[in-house]
Amino acid sequence: MRHLVGPRQLDLCQALVAYASLTPQTKQELRLATVVDIQSGRKPSIDPLVALVAQDIDHVNRRILEFMDSPVALIPQLAGHIIAAGGKRLRPMLTLSAAQLCGYQGQRHIDLAACVEFIHTATLLHDDVVDESDLRRGMETAHVVWGNKASVLVGDFLFSRAFQLMVGDGSLEVLRILSTASAVIAEGEVHQLLTSNDTETGEAAYLEVIKGKTAQLFSAAAEVGAVIADRPKVEREALNAFGMNLGLAFQLIDDALDYSAEQAKLGKEVGDDFREGKITLPVILAFRRGDEKERAFWRRTVERLEQNDDDLATAQRLIRKHGALDDTVARARHYTAVGRDALDIFDDGPVKAALIEVLEFCVERAH
Amino acid sequence: MRHLVGPRQLDLCQALVAYASLTPQTKQELRLATVVDIQSGRKPSIDPLVALVAQDIDHVNRRILEFMDSPVALIPQLAGHIIAAGGKRLRPMLTLSAAQLCGYQGQRHIDLAACVEFIHTATLLHDDVVDESDLRRGMETAHVVWGNKASVLVGDFLFSRAFQLMVGDGSLEVLRILSTASAVIAEGEVHQLLTSNDTETGEAAYLEVIKGKTAQLFSAAAEVGAVIADRPKVEREALNAFGMNLGLAFQLIDDALDYSAEQAKLGKEVGDDFREGKITLPVILAFRRGDEKERAFWRRTVERLEQNDDDLATAQRLIRKHGALDDTVARARHYTAVGRDALDIFDDGPVKAALIEVLEFCVERAH
Repeated sequence: MRHLVGPRQLDLCQALVAYASLTPQTKQELRLATVVDIQSGRKPSIDPLVALVAQDIDHVNRRILEFMDSPVALIPQLAGHIIAAGGKRLRPMLTLSAAQLCGYQGQRHIDLAACVEFIHTATLLHDDVVDESDLRRGMETAHVVWGNKASVLVGDFLFSRAFQLMVGDGSLEVLRILSTASAVIAEGEVHQLLTSNDTETGEAAYLEVIKGKTAQLFSAAAEVGAVIADRPKVEREALNAFGMNLGLAFQLIDDALDYSAEQAKLGKEVGDDFREGKITLPVILAFRRGDEKERAFWRRTVERLEQNDDDLATAQRLIRKHGALDDTVARARHYTAVGRDALDIFDDGPVKAALIEVLEFCVERAH
Repeated sequence: MRHLVGPRQLDLCQALVAYASLTPQTKQELRLATVVDIQSGRKPSIDPLVALVAQDIDHVNRRILEFMDSPVALIPQLAGHIIAAGGKRLRPMLTLSAAQLCGYQGQRHIDLAACVEFIHTATLLHDDVVDESDLRRGMETAHVVWGNKASVLVGDFLFSRAFQLMVGDGSLEVLRILSTASAVIAEGEVHQLLTSNDTETGEAAYLEVIKGKTAQLFSAAAEVGAVIADRPKVEREALNAFGMNLGLAFQLIDDALDYSAEQAKLGKEVGDDFREGKITLPVILAFRRGDEKERAFWRRTVERLEQNDDDLATAQRLIRKHGALDDTVARARHYTAVGRDALDIFDDGPVKAALIEVLEFCVERAH
């Protein structure tokens, strides 16, 4: 459907007539289609952004390896393993592309992008730490590779290196932004710990958690690009808002994907959050919209973590039944809309287009 | 003995005659006596330093409480518990007294001393993290109160707050010193993790570990006092060296006390390091000086952690037999001597005297 009908392929009149005749379901699909680049016939992608910063990312990777060096061999080993395994480099790409968007000409964005990646990696390592109680329940997160202590200490090392990179850069404003982000991230993580396994958690508390643990670093990473380019406050705030909203959408979709049947079909792991009893928006919505019997199910499975083999399927069914996945995606779409508007003040161009496409890509992952 | 004979109470001639006639044991006691303040008849103490910085420490405590504030209630709770329980405040006192020694007049030392305490507390929290393997062996450190995850995340929060305090202060030089210290501390902790339970660890590796995990923050804390007072490099380096040597002596004595019979008599906990299989200098010396049977004992107890009720007593006996405790104290005394000489460039006065007394106090704890 979404590849056949798109506003840009019809003239306005045709489009209005066609739109009015659609079922609500088709209208929803049409709205989805607006985030698809019809003209090129491809789904929104992170690739244009990757292409724009490709050279810079090479420099960043080189700096990351240099700064992970230590006479204590375990440090480059562990950190190298983590960094090598480490996904899309979305956060450093935000710093690099924000700097480009602001017309920045120097080299400071390289080290600061590395710094953002160090903070992110340190957070990941610390997130992998397993609680005694989890172990006693016989649970282990999928990520446990190195042991708690090594995860903590190598994380600390990367975190310190991040600050050394900032100090080397020498901007107190950058230091202020990233040290505040670090404090908010840590606060968000503690907050998440407190809401874990608590089905009473509401949507507002959940939003605070993901704002802290995910969106804050996205917003800081983007803002730093404007700071080093010495751009006025309005542009700094715009990039901060862009990063914040992208981060919120990104985490909402991540949390939706963890219960997604499509995701499971693609052979990707689902149910991690469920097994850990993380209280994410799909669960919050399904719990609140459910009857007493359903709530008892959630209390048993995510609060008391008494789970059997069929429970994940039941959880997915309940979430689907209450439209909790679609509504989580709809919430994400709200934030991508706000994020897109935040970029309005910048002139059109390839960097702006690539950033907007990242917003679209972020939600499109859910389909 | 040490209160009856002391060099300052005899004239030189008398002293030499008296010294020659002493038994080796008495000579050793006499050497100990030189670190005792004979004239006032009291043991070296940290009290003069405490008195000198008492007012400043009040301000520091107030700032610590302010900066621990967070809407996430667990953070002030946990951090408050840790800070309230938190000992002598030796590290922030170093910053405060170093600033005094350098004639500093402003208020910046208050926040920076709080910052040093935050870094220290964060390190303590992260040090409390228990490894999965420890739990599987049924071991638990005495310190486990809050759970791994909370320890890590509240530690991260304190660490971030420390950087926010530094950024608020605004000196890139201070930021450089303390971010480097943080990286070295983390490196030292990883290094310690690697030497844990490894009886092959030599004295050099042990020294690197305690330099990182303990002495580095002492030296940074002291150096910062000179930096804010805008003193020349020679004074900064002197305070750095004083802190470094104090830290090394402090940790050596701590490691000796963990096997000390006197310590046990005072009702204080001993044997923590032994139970965890930490390889500290008393063990390194006893292991290397021991015969094959003794080495087998150490391998079983601290390497494989197969321990029974009598093993701590055996460990203490072997350490005593090889003079490993006395020699650990002797090593500490070497560092206090170097630390004392580092302060030579400063004019005599109550602050310098108090800092020297802290060196003496540090070793005197072992007796």
